[in-house]
Amino acid sequence: MKFYGGIEAGGTKFICAVGSKPDNLKKLVIPTTSPDETIAGALDFFKKQSLNMPIFAIGIGSFGPVDLDKNSSTYGYITSTPKANWEMTNFIGAIKKSFDVPISFDTDVNAAAFGEHKWGAAQGLSTFIYLTIGTGIGGGGMINGSLMHGLLHPEMGHIMIPRKIGDKKSYSGNCPYHSDCFEGLASGAAIQNRWGKPGENLDPDHPAWSYEAEYISYALVNYILTISPQRIIIGGGVMKQKQLLPAVHTKVKQILNKYIRSSIITEHIEDYIVLPALNDASGVIGAIALAEKAI
Amino acid sequence: MKFYGGIEAGGTKFICAVGSKPDNLKKLVIPTTSPDETIAGALDFFKKQSLNMPIFAIGIGSFGPVDLDKNSSTYGYITSTPKANWEMTNFIGAIKKSFDVPISFDTDVNAAAFGEHKWGAAQGLSTFIYLTIGTGIGGGGMINGSLMHGLLHPEMGHIMIPRKIGDKKSYSGNCPYHSDCFEGLASGAAIQNRWGKPGENLDPDHPAWSYEAEYISYALVNYILTISPQRIIIGGGVMKQKQLLPAVHTKVKQILNKYIRSSIITEHIEDYIVLPALNDASGVIGAIALAEKAI
Repeated sequence: MKFYGGIEAGGTKFICAVGSKPDNLKKLVIPTTSPDETIAGALDFFKKQSLNMPIFAIGIGSFGPVDLDKNSSTYGYITSTPKANWEMTNFIGAIKKSFDVPISFDTDVNAAAFGEHKWGAAQGLSTFIYLTIGTGIGGGGMINGSLMHGLLHPEMGHIMIPRKIGDKKSYSGNCPYHSDCFEGLASGAAIQNRWGKPGENLDPDHPAWSYEAEYISYALVNYILTISPQRIIIGGGVMKQKQLLPAVHTKVKQILNKYIRSSIITEHIEDYIVLPALNDASGVIGAIALAEKAI
Repeated sequence: MKFYGGIEAGGTKFICAVGSKPDNLKKLVIPTTSPDETIAGALDFFKKQSLNMPIFAIGIGSFGPVDLDKNSSTYGYITSTPKANWEMTNFIGAIKKSFDVPISFDTDVNAAAFGEHKWGAAQGLSTFIYLTIGTGIGGGGMINGSLMHGLLHPEMGHIMIPRKIGDKKSYSGNCPYHSDCFEGLASGAAIQNRWGKPGENLDPDHPAWSYEAEYISYALVNYILTISPQRIIIGGGVMKQKQLLPAVHTKVKQILNKYIRSSIITEHIEDYIVLPALNDASGVIGAIALAEKAI
């Protein structure tokens, strides 16, 4: 059995793991401070673990934007992030200094998608989306069996959606780039900004949730019509609200209005739009799966 | 040199061609009446042409919705179309009766995308979108080098977009499924419905065009953020309005607001959002390219 290192690099914390599959991972969580300090923490953990089990490859799913173009001089960098000190961080380069093994580098959401594909809710699918709705909103996935890249990488949290019917635009949205894009209206940060407290402190019948369900549904409808995924997996803290997913199921069908004539959507939407099977571990497990792919 | 048959099957006309590449095609245009009559017309043309040059394969780019799932019992059918008499038409089956050759079947827009990939504006690209804005709006393309399929096939003309700033919603949109989706607001049929005459009879400085540019730009921004294409090709009758493409270039950059930091978008958008290089022939040329692929 070969062992791998995985890093789910988030803006708040790094989740590091060493192992070969979901049920044998050793994990460590490190707060995200400076690039030097945080990456050194991950490397120390890998070094200690590799005394027991040699690490054959490392997978990284990182917050971004990141440069995924292998022909670029900044491949493997975190590029234009607003996060202090992390702009133009050579992530692969820093890892390579200590571990001369194959390294696979992708977005945090593509890593999570890849983990769900190998061990979770997207097994056997070739075209699907993984979306996370937390402080921000990000999306990735696979199309025709390959992770989504393209010109840079998807930034599907920022699509422009209609307002909820009856939304009087008293709230202008909190995205610094696009004001009332999907993230600007529906992220955890937007919920807190609009309603004055974080989502977890709002009652399940607070009006915030009908807005939230409608915004999420507009976005999902657009992804469905644009990509035609075989399934959509939605993770992230906001989706912990148990009333939200059923409301989204109802609203997506209502907006699509039977235009897409697939019984998977019209009759079995609860199997079509689902929570991650790997729960909060999709990202770090996906980083392990990326590492395995790197060999 | 091998010769192929190609059909661009539209709701108004069938464009049929026999040949091997854009500059040696023999073409015939047939009005779309009943399935029996129209498909027979295409077959007659192929039979006559095949006396001179044997046809090794046939490619079809069809209006839809179509069934592209090779494991489905209705693979190769036009399925739930509202077009009279065409619902559940076994397109491949009708062709197979006369030509026992490999047949490649896809959407009209995927065929056009494939033609542009082989001989037009998408040569060398692996991830791009082909959009047509005519009576209706449809989109297809390739991702990671494969045509877009997924659960069914994209229906990207129907995504939900915000209203233009200042649009007082006096016009409710003309999509029978989604009222004011992109197609419901911005198709040629919507322009005629809203402003009382067809787009080609509206002055270039008519207010219709600033609405049109803004709706198109919202849709393109959403495709860019969702798929991260390397290029977007836009064809169709509405794009014959010469003032429209430059207005879209300006507006897309304005909406994205430098969020996607690629100089291809921020500095060279006129090479990023382009008209088809094959003009109105992308579809039928793409059908020939699909036929070649079928072998």
